[in-house]
Amino acid sequence: VTEPEFVDLLRALPLAQGAGGLADDAATLHIGGETLVLTHDSIAEGVHYRAGTDPADIAWKLVAVNLSDLAAKGAVPIGVLIGATLIDGGERFVAGLREVLEAYSVPLFGGDTIALPKGAPAVFGCTAIGRASHWPVPVRSGARPGDGLWLCGELGAAMLGYEGSAGHLHAYLRPRPLLAEGIALAPHVHAMMDVSDGLLLDAARMAAASGCTIDIAAEAVPVSGSDRDRAMRWGDDYALLLAAPDGFEPPVPASRIGRVLPQGAEPLLVDGAAPTGPLGYQHG
Amino acid sequence: VTEPEFVDLLRALPLAQGAGGLADDAATLHIGGETLVLTHDSIAEGVHYRAGTDPADIAWKLVAVNLSDLAAKGAVPIGVLIGATLIDGGERFVAGLREVLEAYSVPLFGGDTIALPKGAPAVFGCTAIGRASHWPVPVRSGARPGDGLWLCGELGAAMLGYEGSAGHLHAYLRPRPLLAEGIALAPHVHAMMDVSDGLLLDAARMAAASGCTIDIAAEAVPVSGSDRDRAMRWGDDYALLLAAPDGFEPPVPASRIGRVLPQGAEPLLVDGAAPTGPLGYQHG
Repeated sequence: VTEPEFVDLLRALPLAQGAGGLADDAATLHIGGETLVLTHDSIAEGVHYRAGTDPADIAWKLVAVNLSDLAAKGAVPIGVLIGATLIDGGERFVAGLREVLEAYSVPLFGGDTIALPKGAPAVFGCTAIGRASHWPVPVRSGARPGDGLWLCGELGAAMLGYEGSAGHLHAYLRPRPLLAEGIALAPHVHAMMDVSDGLLLDAARMAAASGCTIDIAAEAVPVSGSDRDRAMRWGDDYALLLAAPDGFEPPVPASRIGRVLPQGAEPLLVDGAAPTGPLGYQHG
Repeated sequence: VTEPEFVDLLRALPLAQGAGGLADDAATLHIGGETLVLTHDSIAEGVHYRAGTDPADIAWKLVAVNLSDLAAKGAVPIGVLIGATLIDGGERFVAGLREVLEAYSVPLFGGDTIALPKGAPAVFGCTAIGRASHWPVPVRSGARPGDGLWLCGELGAAMLGYEGSAGHLHAYLRPRPLLAEGIALAPHVHAMMDVSDGLLLDAARMAAASGCTIDIAAEAVPVSGSDRDRAMRWGDDYALLLAAPDGFEPPVPASRIGRVLPQGAEPLLVDGAAPTGPLGYQHG
């Protein structure tokens, strides 16, 4: 089965009330008057990072991509659990883990380690747990016709770093989860998600989940470098994409990059026309 | 670095208050007047299960070993997050996931899927979240001299199944987390853990964590089959090991298999003498 088919099968399982039909990047759990936000993402050698990557950068990215999912929910991180493969350079992995945990004041709850056969690609998992700062927790399905579409953060730097620009390497290796920004934005948005697979792909997902069409004004998208079209299909910058009602004044720097329309024939338009080619990083 | 060295490095990171110094199989999180229990365990092809295993059995085992960690804490499962590799037979994986989730009334919160390069060993992670049924939550470090040592469940069936006994194959492939038993026992014990790496190894760990010596009476250990010595070094039965004060009357079937002594030269004795050879499944 392909990844979409697999996820469809998972959707038919007994789901937690806060699982949101597995349509979102994180789940919620109400307990004792609080709301927790739960998310789990794995990264694998040769898939999400290149063989030979400094293990400290692997650890940073592993935690950062999970914290980015909390950021999109306006959640305050409480802690993480880590599933780690034993690798050469394990001490560098722990050093990077320390850096990212200290940078965002997130403690470690626990986890486990596995020793894979020699030569097997390493796989790392992370579960991040946060406390919702605002109720309702933003979802990707809440965009409404008439909303403005906004982006907090820039696109393209990670792509440039991946492709060899020394000045942008850090952006690729060490993404910054926009936690403070997500907390500030959460009370004001109708929908929010992080851009992890490409702006066009993730915007199309927001549109589909919301039953709307999203029209992006390409020139308004904040991009590093000159290749705007490719930068809009690249995900590793972990910007926040949000839909907010007319009159929204962003409490943190953000760019208005488009608008939400009633559902049309296409979920996504760029400057009024359906984009062609791959919209972003497609799994499976 | 070896697994013990890696875990020692992790212990020096910023740890959550409920992480228990990473000395236990699960962490606790107090929130809104409740106590959550959090645990994460991964399993990998060729390490924790054999290549060619029915993916339904992989899914069962993945969830069951995590629920067993909740059982040892007397926790009531709230839900799980799953990190899954896309494999041939993904629909069988989901079928087994349904079976284990339904068997223990545990819903799915979410998770993620990764597509590994062809031929790479599959890796699956699970984070299980439970609600503590009793405070304090049992730890492995609470055994005290004078306590009786008890085992809830039997040993050896998984070993026989692994080694080809058709009548015991189910015990190996589909371990039963002793959730109800753990909840019943939690209010009465000084220490509790599940036997996942071998009774002798896990008892030695309980002794070391508790600053005691544990003396096991081999003849009292409930074992399937005739190879008592090897069964005591085999972990896949997921029995519960507990230390309870003198006069303890188990609320569920359990066998008194030894006693807790003041710390001596050896953490573990079997019939009064230090056992030789590997005590169980040593990681890393």
